[in-house]
Amino acid sequence: MSTDRKRILIIGGNAGGASCAARSRRLSETAEIIVFEQGSFVSFANCGLPYYIGDVITDEKKLLVANVDLFRDRFNIDVRLENEVMAIDREAMQITVKNHQTGAVYQESYDALVLAIGAAPIRPPLAGIDLKGIFVVRTIPDSRQIRAWIDDHHAKRAVIVGGGFIGLEMAENLVSRGIEVTLIESQSQVMSPLDPEMVVTVQEKMRSHHVNLVLGDSVAKFSPNPDLGADGGIVVTTKSGTTHQANIVILGIGVRPETSLAKAAGLEIGDRGGISVNEQMQTSDPKIWAVGDAVEVKDFVTGEWTLIPLAGPANRQGRIAADVICEAHPSSFRGVQGTSVCGTFGLTIASTGINEKTLKRLGWEYEKVYLHPIHHAGYYPDAKPIDLKLLFSKQDGRIFGAQAVGEEGVEKRIDAIAIAMQMGATVFDLEEAELCYAPQFGSAKDPVNMAGMIAANVLRGDATLVHWEQLSKLDGRLLLDVRNVDEFEAGNVQGAVNIPLPQLRDRLNELNPEQEIWVYCQVGQRGYYATRILSLNGFKAYNLSGGFKTFQAFS
Amino acid sequence: MSTDRKRILIIGGNAGGASCAARSRRLSETAEIIVFEQGSFVSFANCGLPYYIGDVITDEKKLLVANVDLFRDRFNIDVRLENEVMAIDREAMQITVKNHQTGAVYQESYDALVLAIGAAPIRPPLAGIDLKGIFVVRTIPDSRQIRAWIDDHHAKRAVIVGGGFIGLEMAENLVSRGIEVTLIESQSQVMSPLDPEMVVTVQEKMRSHHVNLVLGDSVAKFSPNPDLGADGGIVVTTKSGTTHQANIVILGIGVRPETSLAKAAGLEIGDRGGISVNEQMQTSDPKIWAVGDAVEVKDFVTGEWTLIPLAGPANRQGRIAADVICEAHPSSFRGVQGTSVCGTFGLTIASTGINEKTLKRLGWEYEKVYLHPIHHAGYYPDAKPIDLKLLFSKQDGRIFGAQAVGEEGVEKRIDAIAIAMQMGATVFDLEEAELCYAPQFGSAKDPVNMAGMIAANVLRGDATLVHWEQLSKLDGRLLLDVRNVDEFEAGNVQGAVNIPLPQLRDRLNELNPEQEIWVYCQVGQRGYYATRILSLNGFKAYNLSGGFKTFQAFS
Repeated sequence: MSTDRKRILIIGGNAGGASCAARSRRLSETAEIIVFEQGSFVSFANCGLPYYIGDVITDEKKLLVANVDLFRDRFNIDVRLENEVMAIDREAMQITVKNHQTGAVYQESYDALVLAIGAAPIRPPLAGIDLKGIFVVRTIPDSRQIRAWIDDHHAKRAVIVGGGFIGLEMAENLVSRGIEVTLIESQSQVMSPLDPEMVVTVQEKMRSHHVNLVLGDSVAKFSPNPDLGADGGIVVTTKSGTTHQANIVILGIGVRPETSLAKAAGLEIGDRGGISVNEQMQTSDPKIWAVGDAVEVKDFVTGEWTLIPLAGPANRQGRIAADVICEAHPSSFRGVQGTSVCGTFGLTIASTGINEKTLKRLGWEYEKVYLHPIHHAGYYPDAKPIDLKLLFSKQDGRIFGAQAVGEEGVEKRIDAIAIAMQMGATVFDLEEAELCYAPQFGSAKDPVNMAGMIAANVLRGDATLVHWEQLSKLDGRLLLDVRNVDEFEAGNVQGAVNIPLPQLRDRLNELNPEQEIWVYCQVGQRGYYATRILSLNGFKAYNLSGGFKTFQAFS
Repeated sequence: MSTDRKRILIIGGNAGGASCAARSRRLSETAEIIVFEQGSFVSFANCGLPYYIGDVITDEKKLLVANVDLFRDRFNIDVRLENEVMAIDREAMQITVKNHQTGAVYQESYDALVLAIGAAPIRPPLAGIDLKGIFVVRTIPDSRQIRAWIDDHHAKRAVIVGGGFIGLEMAENLVSRGIEVTLIESQSQVMSPLDPEMVVTVQEKMRSHHVNLVLGDSVAKFSPNPDLGADGGIVVTTKSGTTHQANIVILGIGVRPETSLAKAAGLEIGDRGGISVNEQMQTSDPKIWAVGDAVEVKDFVTGEWTLIPLAGPANRQGRIAADVICEAHPSSFRGVQGTSVCGTFGLTIASTGINEKTLKRLGWEYEKVYLHPIHHAGYYPDAKPIDLKLLFSKQDGRIFGAQAVGEEGVEKRIDAIAIAMQMGATVFDLEEAELCYAPQFGSAKDPVNMAGMIAANVLRGDATLVHWEQLSKLDGRLLLDVRNVDEFEAGNVQGAVNIPLPQLRDRLNELNPEQEIWVYCQVGQRGYYATRILSLNGFKAYNLSGGFKTFQAFS
């Protein structure tokens, strides 16, 4: 434990910075700890802003996790709001600060400097981007302005740019306030941490709540629209040439690491545009640390450097920097796996690890399974399906990532898989996991077990799979639907032949042993049984992973 | 993959037996598979019975996970209901079966025999145990009889014997039907998988729903009570001499492995009274396997043999036996960790691994932490506290077990810890876990992280703890309450001195550096901060784990 009178200066008073400050104090009573926060709040809950705008959180004070008094009284930490750090003099180990309350400019010297400056919402340099009524959602003042704007202009129509976390949360919250929402996303899917076929139900759900979802198009310009009121009208024109009228525009197209200070000080910046740090969160200057959204972190699965602006990792990094600065513990950051969750219109969308898009980019050999288990025992009322996708190594079963969408019990399964991945688990471990089961909480075979079992069956050679994207090229194979006749007649894959599973053993003679068979059922289970019957009888058979439900979602 | 015409006979058609049968078929199309089920249903949801009695599950058919037709049509498995296996002739590899429908007795020979006979509810040999109106809750006919009895006798008062899973679930369901419930439990606590201090809130919650909870007493006898109707009146007399009148009695005092058949056949029985099996679920006769509630399993944490009658492990064992019997895979059972969950009166009670009672019995060196985090971000509406206890190795931080009680998000945290334990995790891994966070789902520092952080702080020497049970012996130490004055005045630990945390640094001179200090706050966090201040200023200070809330729960 360090007891010298170290001067620890921390730039930025949110997640990473606040954690670093508080932990530094717990490790040293004698250090002088000063937090410089450019904004007017310290340690506020920016993940709550969409819900404050949507009146789910009605008291703004709730968003203030801590304040200057608490930092002083509890931690003996000097938090200086509206104090902007203008420059770092690494030679002199000194920063220049501008106090925006007084206009004064002053210097402070440091023994350790921590950059916890965060990231800034991206405002693309488009025509009209500075029009009134175009907002980002990053700070309490941002959300105050949005609330006021909606009220003052009786906003009826909004355009949200970007279909990520902020975009989806804002869509839900604006709709709940009675505002008609158009959401424009340049990619062909919302929620890019997941693969496109996994968010089809999300997109359908949003449309069912009358969100006008514009995918695969992006904003070309913003123009004033006086028809909608004196300063309340904006026309959003997309690159494809469509126009959308709005009283308010929300930009949710991501964030960019705040690196200007670091760059000006000559600190090393990584290829992804974030501040480079080592596992001790140390920058290229050993007296300067950086944590949170501004830094590049190592992807735990791929080993690549990446940007993951999430609160959890920021907090962990802040603690680690404190351990190292105070010379208390040899802590190091293990990297990130990108575990995240988003709720919108009653759906939970969660994922951990890497997705199939990334696996393809890396060129790694992988396998995947889809399943649609229910969130608790089917015999207990209100069981809801979860769409689950598991990606894993074909060689050894190591889990690469998981994605899940559903109404209930979704993030619980991703949490279990996330911590399993952290510990280096394979799909065989998921198969053997012993999780909580009572009818209102899960199933004797939990969705996590099911995912592991299916994947393990694949690796053991008991289950042979075909995937939805392969179905467009049958190439002379037989496509066999083993659902009941009524299910088949209600909708099927073009070209499929129907032999219900219970009849299959008796009708094997109708099949050509020379012809490869692709089997499907509704969610994959009966198809698996059918594939087993066929394989054990000498046929070459493959089961459609996730069944008709997965196929249909993306077709 | 085996293709010989093996005869696989399975005794028992529920969880373990049904899983074994279905998987055997998936591994072999040619094997002859026969399931002998003594009862009148196959593969039914016995975990749902209390909810069927309580009218939460209104359609009895929902409890039938599968039926004879489905087994025949889908799996080509011959399920024989009401067919009781009377004897096993190991020499001849043959069983004797009585068909209770026809009265016929017949033999069947086997290549592999699987005992999936389960466990029988314990009916203690007490006076009056055979009176009408005394029920167990194990089968669909049991619950039909209970439903009918309640209706026919307009049951107003029930006595439940046993405060485990069935007892607690039945209490909730009977109360919801307007029945006054007395629950008698011989131990001094309900839900013995948890430690006593963790279930105090459960007991309080039950009492708040007017359950008359009788702890530390047990039933001496049952007598008829004609006052309560012709055959509807039972007086339950306890060993302490109190009497309780009831229209109906539910026995929920546990189950006993069904081993009579195995014993008669000379199979090895373990010290705990279950059938002995190896990791391939093979009994002492290599042609006979056993799975489910009837077998002894290895406790994953302690290495001891134990009885864990849970559906999840039973299913896993059934699959493993099938793999081995069909010579498909070298599968083996990894043991159990006793992950379980129970819901009652809006509370979720979950645990995994071993409890403190077991650690004490084993004489292992361990440490524990208590915490009371909220289940999602505090600034988002309706955050509910979770009482969490983590037990871990003092040497290396390996997790021994975890227990949690609360209204929301409880089993999710136990699942995460359970799978972490399975992978050999330490508290340092929990600290670093990257779990789903959005305000309605969790916190940037999830309760799982918090538990890990506190425990890791202890092992690193940053946090020094004292526990609630030590507070009765102050022995000259100073007991320091660092909560605010109003909190202190609303209730405190006898003998405590109050110095609110924000004043502590300025009032250190009031403290005697020679006197050891035990600090507490409400839940443990401010106490930790105070302990840090004191320790770093040269005092010998310890923080009450879980704070006043944990102390109060058990005092």
